[in-house]
Amino acid sequence: MLQIWALEGIGEVREGDDLVALIADAAGDALRDGDILVVTSKIVSKAEGRFVSASDREDAITAETVRIVASRTSPTGQTTRIVENRLGIVAAAAGVDASNTPHGTVLLLPVDPDASARALATGLRELLGVEIGVIVSDTHGRAWREGQTDNAIGAGGVHVFDDLRGGTDAEGRPLFVTQPCVADELASASDLVKGKAARLPVAVVRGRADLVGALDLPGARSVVRPAERDFFRLGADEAREEGYEEGYADGFESARIEADGD
Amino acid sequence: MLQIWALEGIGEVREGDDLVALIADAAGDALRDGDILVVTSKIVSKAEGRFVSASDREDAITAETVRIVASRTSPTGQTTRIVENRLGIVAAAAGVDASNTPHGTVLLLPVDPDASARALATGLRELLGVEIGVIVSDTHGRAWREGQTDNAIGAGGVHVFDDLRGGTDAEGRPLFVTQPCVADELASASDLVKGKAARLPVAVVRGRADLVGALDLPGARSVVRPAERDFFRLGADEAREEGYEEGYADGFESARIEADGD
Repeated sequence: MLQIWALEGIGEVREGDDLVALIADAAGDALRDGDILVVTSKIVSKAEGRFVSASDREDAITAETVRIVASRTSPTGQTTRIVENRLGIVAAAAGVDASNTPHGTVLLLPVDPDASARALATGLRELLGVEIGVIVSDTHGRAWREGQTDNAIGAGGVHVFDDLRGGTDAEGRPLFVTQPCVADELASASDLVKGKAARLPVAVVRGRADLVGALDLPGARSVVRPAERDFFRLGADEAREEGYEEGYADGFESARIEADGD
Repeated sequence: MLQIWALEGIGEVREGDDLVALIADAAGDALRDGDILVVTSKIVSKAEGRFVSASDREDAITAETVRIVASRTSPTGQTTRIVENRLGIVAAAAGVDASNTPHGTVLLLPVDPDASARALATGLRELLGVEIGVIVSDTHGRAWREGQTDNAIGAGGVHVFDDLRGGTDAEGRPLFVTQPCVADELASASDLVKGKAARLPVAVVRGRADLVGALDLPGARSVVRPAERDFFRLGADEAREEGYEEGYADGFESARIEADGD
C-alpha cells in the first residue's frame, strides 16, 4: 500500500527561509523511516532567492539556455521555446516560471536541485531522526503527448531508477531493457495530491522504503539522457533546416564540379 | 490522502478470459465510488488473444507501425525503432511486448484500449454497483530522459486531464498553459505498487474521486498530440537527412540554372 499526502501549513516561502525547519514544522511527528518527500522546485527556488524581474523574463530564459532544441511561433505571435537548460533538462522556457511568483517577478530553477535535495534530506534526517529521501520536482511538457506531468529534477537519499535490468520476468527471461524511472513516477504521483493552484508544495510518499538509501546515491542528473544517446536532441523542423542548408551547399558544389568537368 | 495498492490474486490471464469477472473477484468488496483502477495493457491484450509468434516479432512491429519516427542501430547490432503505432502513440517497437508472455510468443497492444477501458468500467460499475474509473496503462520510454514511466493508453469513466486552463494561480493570474495529464500521472503512480516482474497487473487508486465521471468522457486517445502540433514528430537524424536530400536537390538545380544563365 502506497500512501501519498500533502503537508499542510507551509505558507509562502521567502528568500532565505530555512526549508528544513519549515518542512519539519509542517510534518510534525508524522514522518517515518522510508518516507519520501517530494518538494516542488518552486519553493526551493524561492528559498534560494532565485527571483528576477518579470521584464527580464526573455533575458532570463536566454541566460538559462545552453541550447535551443525547438522553437515555434503560433499564429497569435506567442513563441514556445523548448531548450536544454544548464541542468541538462529539456523543457519549455528553460524552466523559468511565471506562475505563483510575486507580481513583477519570475523564478529561475534552483542552482543545483540535486544538491538542494541532498541538503534537505541531510537536514531532515538530522533534525527528525528519520531516514527519509527527498525529490525536488518540476512540471514538464512531453514530446508526442499533450499536457504536463511532474518529473524529478533533484534527488537526495533516494534511488532514481528501480533497476530491473539484472532481473528476470515471471517467465525467467531477462528484463534487460526495463529501468523504471521511479523518481519521475514519484514526482507524478505526488502531483496528484498537490494541485497547481493550492499552496501544497510538499508531498509525502509512504510505502516504498526500499527506494530510500544513502545520501550519496546518484541524483536526478543521472536521469538526463546524454545528447549522443538522444534521438530527439533537436526539433524536427530545426534538424530538417540544418540538413537542408548543408545539402543545398553540397548540391550546389556538386553541380559546379560537374559543370566544370564538362 | 491518496492510497494506491495492487490487487492480489489475479493469476495468469488467457485468451477469452472475462477481465471484469477476474478483477471483481480479486477486488472482493474493497472498491468504492470514486476509485480508479489502473490495468496493465498486457492483461487486456492477453484476454483479447493478441499473441503472435515470436518469430514474427519484426513483422508484427512493422504491421503495427504507421510511421517510423526514429531508428538507430547500436554498435552491437541491436536496432531500436521508435514508431508511431496505429493508436497514434509514439513508442519503441510499436508497443509489441516480448516480456511476461508465453515462450515463443510476443504480444500486441489491445485493439482499442479506450474501448477496453470503457468496457471494463461499464462492466465493473454494473457488477459491483460502484462508480469507478478505469485506465489501461503501458510502459513508455521518453525523449531526453533515461528510463521508462507508465502512461495511460486507454481511459474509461475518468478525466485524462485536470484542466486548470480556466483557473488562476494563488496570485490570481490565469494558469493558461497548465493542463496536468492526470491519466499518465495515475499510471505512473500505479507502477510504483505493481512491480514489473511480479504478476500484479491491476492497481487501485483511492483519493481522486473528482476525476471519475461519465463513461463517455474523452479517452486516452486525446492525450496523443496531433502531428501538426508536435515539434518532435521525427527523430533529429531522420529530419536532418530528409532536409539534406531536399536541400541537395535544390542546390544542384540552382547551380544548374545559374550556369545556364552565364
